[in-house]
Amino acid sequence: MIDPTRHHTAPNNYTHQNAPTQFVEAAGIRFAYRRFGAGIDIPLLFFMHFTGTMDHWDPALTDGFAQDREVILFNNAGVSSSGGDVPASIEEMAQHAAAFIDALGVKKLDALGFSIGGLIAQQFTMDRPDLVRKLILVGTGPRSGQGMASLTPEAQNIFGAKYDPADELWLRVFFTPSERSQAAGRKYLERQRARKENRDPLPNEKVAPAQLAALQKWGAPVKDPYAYLKKITQPTLVVNGSNDVIVYTVNSFILEQNLPNAQLILYPDSNHGSQYQYPELFVEHVSQFLKG
Amino acid sequence: MIDPTRHHTAPNNYTHQNAPTQFVEAAGIRFAYRRFGAGIDIPLLFFMHFTGTMDHWDPALTDGFAQDREVILFNNAGVSSSGGDVPASIEEMAQHAAAFIDALGVKKLDALGFSIGGLIAQQFTMDRPDLVRKLILVGTGPRSGQGMASLTPEAQNIFGAKYDPADELWLRVFFTPSERSQAAGRKYLERQRARKENRDPLPNEKVAPAQLAALQKWGAPVKDPYAYLKKITQPTLVVNGSNDVIVYTVNSFILEQNLPNAQLILYPDSNHGSQYQYPELFVEHVSQFLKG
Repeated sequence: MIDPTRHHTAPNNYTHQNAPTQFVEAAGIRFAYRRFGAGIDIPLLFFMHFTGTMDHWDPALTDGFAQDREVILFNNAGVSSSGGDVPASIEEMAQHAAAFIDALGVKKLDALGFSIGGLIAQQFTMDRPDLVRKLILVGTGPRSGQGMASLTPEAQNIFGAKYDPADELWLRVFFTPSERSQAAGRKYLERQRARKENRDPLPNEKVAPAQLAALQKWGAPVKDPYAYLKKITQPTLVVNGSNDVIVYTVNSFILEQNLPNAQLILYPDSNHGSQYQYPELFVEHVSQFLKG
Repeated sequence: MIDPTRHHTAPNNYTHQNAPTQFVEAAGIRFAYRRFGAGIDIPLLFFMHFTGTMDHWDPALTDGFAQDREVILFNNAGVSSSGGDVPASIEEMAQHAAAFIDALGVKKLDALGFSIGGLIAQQFTMDRPDLVRKLILVGTGPRSGQGMASLTPEAQNIFGAKYDPADELWLRVFFTPSERSQAAGRKYLERQRARKENRDPLPNEKVAPAQLAALQKWGAPVKDPYAYLKKITQPTLVVNGSNDVIVYTVNSFILEQNLPNAQLILYPDSNHGSQYQYPELFVEHVSQFLKG
């Protein structure tokens, strides 16, 4: 029997492939999560991308980090194995995440947010600076970022097409058309499919529209849109691909230029999922950043 | 007696502090250089910044890299202990560098260019793709880069002021006004002053105007200015500070976006000399890049 309130540094022998899905109740929502790895006394909390579940994380990353720290994956409200409904704002998503973390009893963490997860991680950090030691923002952008008021034309095209098998969608979302990037993409898909037992159910049909509405509110033009970034004083690592067509790469540059304490890394010949194209390098860079 | 034609992997016990200044004749010029370190079979060649000599390199970097590879420092034509005159174009500077390397008998190298040295390293790589395995461009920019048609207003102000001691100029050129950056700057100056014997003479009064003329030709507006970057197919690492006021940071982003195979790293709260502000992190990042 796993005790979800155990101290977060308690070692466990689980990996991405066999960590059980656990549940904790908070703010009236039953949150699904997985914890594995041990070592450094600060867990790494992952914020998932648009329509993703815990199974969409790359085990090369999660197990990579779990070598010397605990990682926590979760589905936010309304997504897959979690209860409740997806709210239509980033702010509410961040509140749900904070309720979940408080219910776990975690007092300090490092946060890694990818795409929409990076927006939530920014908001979460502003709401609860006490909780966040360091922040990693991958394939994401600022409020009113370039091309963020709606899906980009490229994203509309990519998300609007049919794929067989359906998860080959991610070859186009995360990787460039180059042979090398597509080959890396196929390896990512293999890794991501490797967990066979107790996979998360795919999100229901209400998830994408609600997340999209939240994305568009965040991306809508406002006056002095980047001023809020000055409030995020945690050391931050911003990472993206050189050619992100889902959240344009320039948004990562804008984040770095406006955050008070941010490092930027852009990888060559890569799209929205650069961290899955260069998983070893990414784990090395992030580990350096977290220990530095 | 040191044989300048020795195979470049021959180990030696010299460091930044005691490596003798050696000389080799090429293209009618007597080039001054220093070589130290050993290990990996490919030396790292350093291209120096505006008005700098071999002594302006940070031993935290050069000795850091010399742990597992040979490093080669040199003064280009007309600078300090080298003979000849500084030519008024980047193209001629690159030709001089190639003549020097050919005279050493080096057949393959990694190149690290800083500021004007980064321009020369780009040209050198285009001229002699056979010589260059990987390229590192630090605090530099593309042809016709933003603010590169002349010294930036900030650079004019910084280079136009008086300093006592004179080398405190570099506190303003390389570091931001923040307390943390200035403290790092003072440590850099201490490291840079630590070599006591056989220091390079300061460059004569013809160096700055000639280098400036070359910079301005490179920076002048031309049609489709970034197209040439497609010719540099070597894996390239572009590094800069978040707030470079000498060669604006955006130029590093432009380089990364237009080079076919480039990674970008920008460091927080840093100016033109970010690699001297974060020397250990920089050596780690570059070493990862060189081994990858």
